[in-house]
Amino acid sequence: MLINNKNYKTIWVNNSGKIKIIDQNLLPFKFKEVELKNLRDTIVAISTMQVRGAPLIGVTAAYGMHLAIKESPLKKNIIHAGKKLIASRPTAINLKWAVDKIINKVLKFPSDKRKSISLEVAKKLSEDDEVINEKIGKQGSKLILDIFKKKKKAVNILTHCNAGWLATVDWGTATSPIYKARDLDIPIHVWVDETRPRNQGSFLTSWELMQEKIDNTIITDNAGGYLMKQGLVDIVITGSDRTTFTGDVCNKIGTYLKALAAYENNVPFYVALPSSTIDWNNSSGDQILIEERNENEIHFIKGLNSKNKIESIRVTPSAAKAFNVAFDVTPRKYISGLITEYGIVKANKKEIMSIKKKIK
Amino acid sequence: MLINNKNYKTIWVNNSGKIKIIDQNLLPFKFKEVELKNLRDTIVAISTMQVRGAPLIGVTAAYGMHLAIKESPLKKNIIHAGKKLIASRPTAINLKWAVDKIINKVLKFPSDKRKSISLEVAKKLSEDDEVINEKIGKQGSKLILDIFKKKKKAVNILTHCNAGWLATVDWGTATSPIYKARDLDIPIHVWVDETRPRNQGSFLTSWELMQEKIDNTIITDNAGGYLMKQGLVDIVITGSDRTTFTGDVCNKIGTYLKALAAYENNVPFYVALPSSTIDWNNSSGDQILIEERNENEIHFIKGLNSKNKIESIRVTPSAAKAFNVAFDVTPRKYISGLITEYGIVKANKKEIMSIKKKIK
Repeated sequence: MLINNKNYKTIWVNNSGKIKIIDQNLLPFKFKEVELKNLRDTIVAISTMQVRGAPLIGVTAAYGMHLAIKESPLKKNIIHAGKKLIASRPTAINLKWAVDKIINKVLKFPSDKRKSISLEVAKKLSEDDEVINEKIGKQGSKLILDIFKKKKKAVNILTHCNAGWLATVDWGTATSPIYKARDLDIPIHVWVDETRPRNQGSFLTSWELMQEKIDNTIITDNAGGYLMKQGLVDIVITGSDRTTFTGDVCNKIGTYLKALAAYENNVPFYVALPSSTIDWNNSSGDQILIEERNENEIHFIKGLNSKNKIESIRVTPSAAKAFNVAFDVTPRKYISGLITEYGIVKANKKEIMSIKKKIK
Repeated sequence: MLINNKNYKTIWVNNSGKIKIIDQNLLPFKFKEVELKNLRDTIVAISTMQVRGAPLIGVTAAYGMHLAIKESPLKKNIIHAGKKLIASRPTAINLKWAVDKIINKVLKFPSDKRKSISLEVAKKLSEDDEVINEKIGKQGSKLILDIFKKKKKAVNILTHCNAGWLATVDWGTATSPIYKARDLDIPIHVWVDETRPRNQGSFLTSWELMQEKIDNTIITDNAGGYLMKQGLVDIVITGSDRTTFTGDVCNKIGTYLKALAAYENNVPFYVALPSSTIDWNNSSGDQILIEERNENEIHFIKGLNSKNKIESIRVTPSAAKAFNVAFDVTPRKYISGLITEYGIVKANKKEIMSIKKKIK
């Protein structure tokens, strides 16, 4: 997708073989490319959220495994690196998925082949992610097209957090249907939840939509219920960090509140996700380990000061306590459907299991 | 209530006859007393939210009317001043209520008496507010006591925005039951919604509870649903800017989302309000005019920089649009009860009309 009218991916291998990412912690205030030189860089990038979003975390972890194997291709080191990567963000299921993919593959080969094999697998995962997300976009754009056919006016889409192309290698999950609908010339307006405490909505989603010239308006996380009640939201589309095979969705904190409001106001609530984020072992969202992050993410916020410099300021009283839980679970009951690369399915075991058969 | 261990009200006439307020826009970072010298100061104080909260706005408007009458006690001027005050915050119903009280009273007297009469009425309204809020506290503390008797552990209360003593002359509405329960030695912990975009929760509620040494934790507006689902909230208590006589509650944007989550998770959801905020003319919350505020309240946020100075930074991409709606309506269906100075009633016409009979 476009940044300053130039096409980018969120992670790429440049002409000199260097693995590059965009430091998303500096967006939207500063655009900076960063090199991942080793496993340590990769763990820092994931845990400090220079890269974030379940699909991008997965691909980054794959490159991280390659970098670890470059340091030492021994089985012991590979297993150890995998564990460290998986621990860097506990909720993101396809972090583990990507790490396991690499491990299972490279251990079939002798040590001296593992470096090149792991790079191949990482590149393949990256390319697959693009293809998958584009498919999600095509599927989801049908929903938007149907609304437009009835309404014949701009379709209002509400989204939470950033499940945009910045959360993937390209296209995004929740935003992919938006980009694909735009390509079908459907007029679109997006309500972008600010998404406290890390403001991925206002920092990233709004920014990436503006780069692609898609009309959008930032709202506080408090406003979505009001907008739905007023009939100002035609559809909600969010991403998912982990979806149980029974249809419960674990996504950015606050998703649950929007799902309740959508259900109450008969607004369709869809979740866009690659099948790699389906948890085939968990039958209930209540079993998912929810990440608690540092409370300073609530106490401090980053922005541009009057001198146009990035500055972090304290926005709570000194000595105040805060509790920073990063995800919540939306029960299947409130979900109209799951938009996957294999099509749109209902959020129930039967329909989700039908996808499993299609996965290679 | 206490600020730095000294007792304060939010508005008072000092020994030299000056009308003083606390500039709440500087809290929690700086404590500053401000004098209201004339009508203009009062309108600025209300519209820029140096004073805020329905009850405090009402009392401040009453003093503003006194200041206007001091400038000119003629009927034409009094009516004009009243209109200007009412326009300064459209949603707060007891702004109009307080203005009308003063006008109806002073116009019965000759011009030369109106200055002293209006001061008397303003002082009376201020004293009444304290008495009323203390009664709300006594009523509401019974709910907390009942929970404590069953649970025998600290009661977890979630509140949104600041319906604290800072939103009234003293005691608060939603916080008054908390202070009264504390006085009954009930162990309490309060979850404080940050309350974007103006952060009245983190800036004011958390601060005022800390000043009174009441255990509290700031959470993002996104987190309440998760906490309720986890059983970590025993009761929700919010304030109300306007309640229809049929029981719909218009309160700070986001209240509706918390009410939906409380309903879904069987968490009691109570609204604390003085009867002066009941709208006897509106049978449905959908008819209430909802204030839209400047979008810069979303683009910019205030806090302390690394040099401990108050600084405002931009937290959205340049050129981003935002929509800033200040209130939403929670339908009666989701409300367990209304805590008023006349007792706790159900959020329905019959029980609310029973209050009307008690009002002098």
